[in-house]
Amino acid sequence: MPHADSSLIPSIIQTKEDFWSHVHQQLEALIESPGNWVSNLSNAASLVYNALRSFKSFGDGERAVNWCGFYLDAAMFPGQSSTTFGRILHLGPFNGRPACQLIRCEAGKGVCADAWAQRRTILVEEVDAYPGHIACDGETKSEIVVPMIWDGEGGSTVLGVMDLDCLALGGFDEADQRGLEKIVQLLVKSCLWNI
Amino acid sequence: MPHADSSLIPSIIQTKEDFWSHVHQQLEALIESPGNWVSNLSNAASLVYNALRSFKSFGDGERAVNWCGFYLDAAMFPGQSSTTFGRILHLGPFNGRPACQLIRCEAGKGVCADAWAQRRTILVEEVDAYPGHIACDGETKSEIVVPMIWDGEGGSTVLGVMDLDCLALGGFDEADQRGLEKIVQLLVKSCLWNI
Repeated sequence: MPHADSSLIPSIIQTKEDFWSHVHQQLEALIESPGNWVSNLSNAASLVYNALRSFKSFGDGERAVNWCGFYLDAAMFPGQSSTTFGRILHLGPFNGRPACQLIRCEAGKGVCADAWAQRRTILVEEVDAYPGHIACDGETKSEIVVPMIWDGEGGSTVLGVMDLDCLALGGFDEADQRGLEKIVQLLVKSCLWNI
Repeated sequence: MPHADSSLIPSIIQTKEDFWSHVHQQLEALIESPGNWVSNLSNAASLVYNALRSFKSFGDGERAVNWCGFYLDAAMFPGQSSTTFGRILHLGPFNGRPACQLIRCEAGKGVCADAWAQRRTILVEEVDAYPGHIACDGETKSEIVVPMIWDGEGGSTVLGVMDLDCLALGGFDEADQRGLEKIVQLLVKSCLWNI
């Protein structure tokens, strides 16, 4: 099967639970484990974005997911001189229209920064009502951000966040949250993190 | 202006020369210089992909560009143990459906490998007629691959390639080649390459 077809959703898949289980399986087959995080997250952003746009609950119309990707701690990027964690998140691989290149790791500086600081998924039904929301795309109406938490010997570290935007209000629900948290767990354990 | 709007193409832009000049300007404003290559190439892939799909010569119909992104030398990726250049290209940031994670740097192993080995842009009118073509997506009909060449003190190095696919035969022409080569030059000089 050509790699591109991994984002097609068979018509037999009707529920969100089945959808996320299918995407998880496709992701396991697509990425390398252990693999470098740039390649793995590039394919993960593409797979999740395109699978969601092929699935009836979202589709590519007015309820479409319009952004799916990653912001990661600056310390992990190649060519960066920073060696300390927890100051800035840099833009990682994504699918969707262009986006902000960096986010300050401070609570109150938007949904990504809050999910990072609070170490928990944040589900936002209406982004314009969210305190401190940063509008990279004026068309976005709702958002979900899942922190990427790596458990090492010295404790746990937040590597970054996975961020999805939707054109509709209340685009994401608890079933999406459960599915995305499993996707993020798979990615965290499959990539070589240079920390 | 929200970052996402940088990929919109004003209706006054009619020719390919004006299109590529406009995209070049938007890219300069969008990326950081000097900046890390993951963030800069993530936004570059998104900008070029979405701008092409907003432009009348391509659009989002049957002549659409269906993939736009980068393959880079394995030695530059974080978490890689390889320290030698020129063996494998790994998948970098892109927009479009999922793709092959690695390409061997050997002439005859497809368009990306050939552009890398020959250090020149390769314009392919019909991918199915190209010897050694690797089909990541069966829908792709034509392709253009531009090498990313970095001139250092010890000579020039091919960092990787920028790769675009199109759903139509003969999707790209010499005007696209000139525009993309300037985009690649801007990216090569704007990013911090850890070599």
